[in-house]
Amino acid sequence: MKISKLLGERLKEAPAGINIKSHAYLIRAGYIKQVANGIYTLMPPAEKINLKLQQIIREEMDAIDGQEVLFPVVMPRELWDKSGRYSSIGPELLRFKDRTGHDMVLGMTHEEAAVHAAMSTIKSYDQLPFMIYQIQTKFRDEARPRAGLIRVREFTMKDAYSFHTSQEDLEEYYDRVYDAYNRIFTRMGMQNFISVKSDTGMMGGSVAHEFQLLTDIGEDSIVMCDDCKYTANMEVAKSVIDENDHVFGIKKEVYTGEAKTIEEICNLLSVNAKHTCKAVCYATPGDENGVVIVFLRGDREVNEAKLKVLVGGDIAVKDLNGSGLVKGNIGCLDLNIPNAKIFFDKSLQGLENFVTGANKEGYHIEGVSITRDVKPEKYEDISKVNDGDKCPVCGAPLKIRRGIEIGNIFQLGTKYTKSMGMTIHDKDGKEINPIMGCYGIGVGRCLASVAEESSDEKGLVWPMAIAPWHIYLCPIRLDNELVKEVTEKIYDRLLAENFEVLYDDRDVSAGIKLKDSELMGIPVRVVISPKTLENNEVEITIRATGEKIFVPIDKLSKKLDEIVVY
Amino acid sequence: MKISKLLGERLKEAPAGINIKSHAYLIRAGYIKQVANGIYTLMPPAEKINLKLQQIIREEMDAIDGQEVLFPVVMPRELWDKSGRYSSIGPELLRFKDRTGHDMVLGMTHEEAAVHAAMSTIKSYDQLPFMIYQIQTKFRDEARPRAGLIRVREFTMKDAYSFHTSQEDLEEYYDRVYDAYNRIFTRMGMQNFISVKSDTGMMGGSVAHEFQLLTDIGEDSIVMCDDCKYTANMEVAKSVIDENDHVFGIKKEVYTGEAKTIEEICNLLSVNAKHTCKAVCYATPGDENGVVIVFLRGDREVNEAKLKVLVGGDIAVKDLNGSGLVKGNIGCLDLNIPNAKIFFDKSLQGLENFVTGANKEGYHIEGVSITRDVKPEKYEDISKVNDGDKCPVCGAPLKIRRGIEIGNIFQLGTKYTKSMGMTIHDKDGKEINPIMGCYGIGVGRCLASVAEESSDEKGLVWPMAIAPWHIYLCPIRLDNELVKEVTEKIYDRLLAENFEVLYDDRDVSAGIKLKDSELMGIPVRVVISPKTLENNEVEITIRATGEKIFVPIDKLSKKLDEIVVY
Repeated sequence: MKISKLLGERLKEAPAGINIKSHAYLIRAGYIKQVANGIYTLMPPAEKINLKLQQIIREEMDAIDGQEVLFPVVMPRELWDKSGRYSSIGPELLRFKDRTGHDMVLGMTHEEAAVHAAMSTIKSYDQLPFMIYQIQTKFRDEARPRAGLIRVREFTMKDAYSFHTSQEDLEEYYDRVYDAYNRIFTRMGMQNFISVKSDTGMMGGSVAHEFQLLTDIGEDSIVMCDDCKYTANMEVAKSVIDENDHVFGIKKEVYTGEAKTIEEICNLLSVNAKHTCKAVCYATPGDENGVVIVFLRGDREVNEAKLKVLVGGDIAVKDLNGSGLVKGNIGCLDLNIPNAKIFFDKSLQGLENFVTGANKEGYHIEGVSITRDVKPEKYEDISKVNDGDKCPVCGAPLKIRRGIEIGNIFQLGTKYTKSMGMTIHDKDGKEINPIMGCYGIGVGRCLASVAEESSDEKGLVWPMAIAPWHIYLCPIRLDNELVKEVTEKIYDRLLAENFEVLYDDRDVSAGIKLKDSELMGIPVRVVISPKTLENNEVEITIRATGEKIFVPIDKLSKKLDEIVVY
Repeated sequence: MKISKLLGERLKEAPAGINIKSHAYLIRAGYIKQVANGIYTLMPPAEKINLKLQQIIREEMDAIDGQEVLFPVVMPRELWDKSGRYSSIGPELLRFKDRTGHDMVLGMTHEEAAVHAAMSTIKSYDQLPFMIYQIQTKFRDEARPRAGLIRVREFTMKDAYSFHTSQEDLEEYYDRVYDAYNRIFTRMGMQNFISVKSDTGMMGGSVAHEFQLLTDIGEDSIVMCDDCKYTANMEVAKSVIDENDHVFGIKKEVYTGEAKTIEEICNLLSVNAKHTCKAVCYATPGDENGVVIVFLRGDREVNEAKLKVLVGGDIAVKDLNGSGLVKGNIGCLDLNIPNAKIFFDKSLQGLENFVTGANKEGYHIEGVSITRDVKPEKYEDISKVNDGDKCPVCGAPLKIRRGIEIGNIFQLGTKYTKSMGMTIHDKDGKEINPIMGCYGIGVGRCLASVAEESSDEKGLVWPMAIAPWHIYLCPIRLDNELVKEVTEKIYDRLLAENFEVLYDDRDVSAGIKLKDSELMGIPVRVVISPKTLENNEVEITIRATGEKIFVPIDKLSKKLDEIVVY
């Protein structure tokens, strides 16, 4: 490819407001162009990477007996009514009417389509297990797209669905997918990725893992133990909290005036947040008068993912007006609110001598004892892990890191086969619902994740296996006849030898060419200049290490054969 | 692939109401499964073909310097407002609101997205010409999906867009695409396809060609001359009509009562339809009181595509109530309708002694002369070509055949670059709008077209280059230990040798296996049975010809190397 005809331009600066490295570089180097909020065109270099990523995924899916299919993007409401997801998923599921007024959706995952494809065509236990997958465009109407290709509304996704006759069989296959995912991300050139236990969310099911690329710009919080390697997404992470001390206090109402937040109370009363109890209130959609109140130790935050599981549905911000609750003064003692569902977090277990709201404007109560004064029936695990909490497995201090979710695997169970009525005959001729697993990888997000991890202050640094081109052929002084002649010969020869070459045929300065080659992140740069030709040589630069190698022209192909491996 | 685990089932009969061969076979052989009206899941064998078709297209597009990109399926209204197509395209363009209430569309073609990608990134004449293409899911809300994958609402399409500095450059590139298309369809294994001149329709532009696979089930009418090879889509086809005879008649009003149609009038008055003049009336959307009246010879039909070009907009069925027009008695003599646009077809040129409506209930006029009595200012070419009309080039009789449109190429001109404001600097530094071409191929329709053309009374007959598998490995009597052992060895060996093999590992009768291999259309069948093993042989059957070859087991790979070529 000659760069003079390549669609896309290289920019000196990223547009204002873009502060994620991969996002900025992908735009500056001409890889992506925004069409609407969270919607991008992949320009030629990005589409080349996209196809290479897809091919890696395809090979690894085929290697674990996957069968590739293609489900529709647009599906009729009926299919999603059968699983119940037409009504249970929020506005991120795009719903619309077709020209005949029929309700349709844009697929965001394809469990329903997978069961539809399998049911009636698969009838007997000996046809199982099998796995089907597709690589297809998906649309999720995200409320807050961000960071370029990391959180978008439209994206290419590999989604896979397996069907089994038993939980054991699912678990065995789940492990094969787990291993395949490790191979996929390794082949893509990712270095710092891990798998973590995760929440099953709207997919249903029980066991699930996410694959996370660790990076400070990640949206997910991951709880990790360096000692025993326990890892879990914050949404499901467990920890052991320091035990509360057992010094009783004297219960007493105190005037706290305008002090409402834990910080304000702690300052006013000179107590540690670990000796306070705060309340967080939620509404549950569909129940206007109801309220969910979580009490937890003042230094902890509510884990909303766990709370949703506990409540068995969605939760939202609660408007306290008219609820009888006094904002900033809600306390766990003598609270009398009809229709309230009250939960106590395990962080309150054994807590003595703490401050909580007095349930009246301007007052708190100090010296409260959870066992003496409050006596909750039970405690729940609904607070987030704090950095430094103890590992639930080995007791070492936990660390919290950020990650980008690059893939996920779920043990779905029979949620979809049961609701959609898919049955097969087992060995004894009995009708059973197959047990499913589902497995996703966001292709565009992988592209952005590699860009985020493999980049430096000069630009992108693509791993060889997924680079849009292997070689950046970079003549300096193309107006020099000899440079031009040698370069064109090398270009033709490298193409004939099946190297993928981006040829910078522009009549611009050496500085611009070298900078662009670094910004675009092509793994190998070959410079040909009047100076290198004095010795009948070319200069090879390895983008990742900066290493420079001078090679005689007639040894170039051999040298590149050694370098361009993956 | 072992057939026991293959998703999809083989059916003895197609579901009721399916009477297109390719549609029936694709369903019966487990290639496609309907999800909604005009929306299908591609089951594993079809997706294999789909990927091979895409790869052929990709290679040929790259060979003419195409750059692959990926445009979004979902686009914001603004982009389509700029080109004017948001309002000019009918309900086949799916419009909806996203969660923020923003108007969005599902892309049916991507001219707007292509200009968006190119504008601002391409600034100078020396960056042109270039061509960008994508292979992507498209959605068109077709009113009448039909014939399986031939007319669907959701489909995979290759769409390409080229940009040029001059009409000459566009024409030169257009010819390269034309040649590439011929290579693509040939490589896909199509035999009976042609290119024809076509209407540019909603795409805008002037010159356009369609590639048509000739088949009786085609939706398009193609006008062809066997002598000089003139071909054109009916929508734009020209012909020379037999000259009208010049025998004057005596003008006379006659009572025709309930006779309204040309057939009824011809019967009643004993005249040939060639001596009648009929009227066809249309409404033009947006102009409620207006009416378009086309007069043409009674044996001809209106070419609505040409009429649309003449009117410069869409046309629709006209409700004659209250229009002042007398249905069945409309005539070209003394017609006085305000707001009427009246057109005379060239078939009326020189027509004498003909019958036309008297513009009053129950009466016609006979003996009318177009030159003496009607005197139109001019004649238009707005009637369809009739079978047997003369070729406009050589005068030989024209034939009308049916075709499926498998691809199209358009010279777009500056319609999109002008309306969207894309300019570049030409050699003299002047700002110009680039001239565009656009080029489409429906991948799924190609699949169905090959299935339609390459099939016989037993089922599908895939060309080797796109077959889902090369070889159907078909052991007879798998309960025979030797058969099983030899088959498994051959299966492993063929896979290791990179043959694509579908292994019928089912414990079913020989009859079912042989029938399924024929229905599925796998090009080569290898039968291993106790009988063939008596001679240490296997039996090869070529699906397309039925030819049978007995080959010693140790010569099988060599023989297959000769057969599996493409």
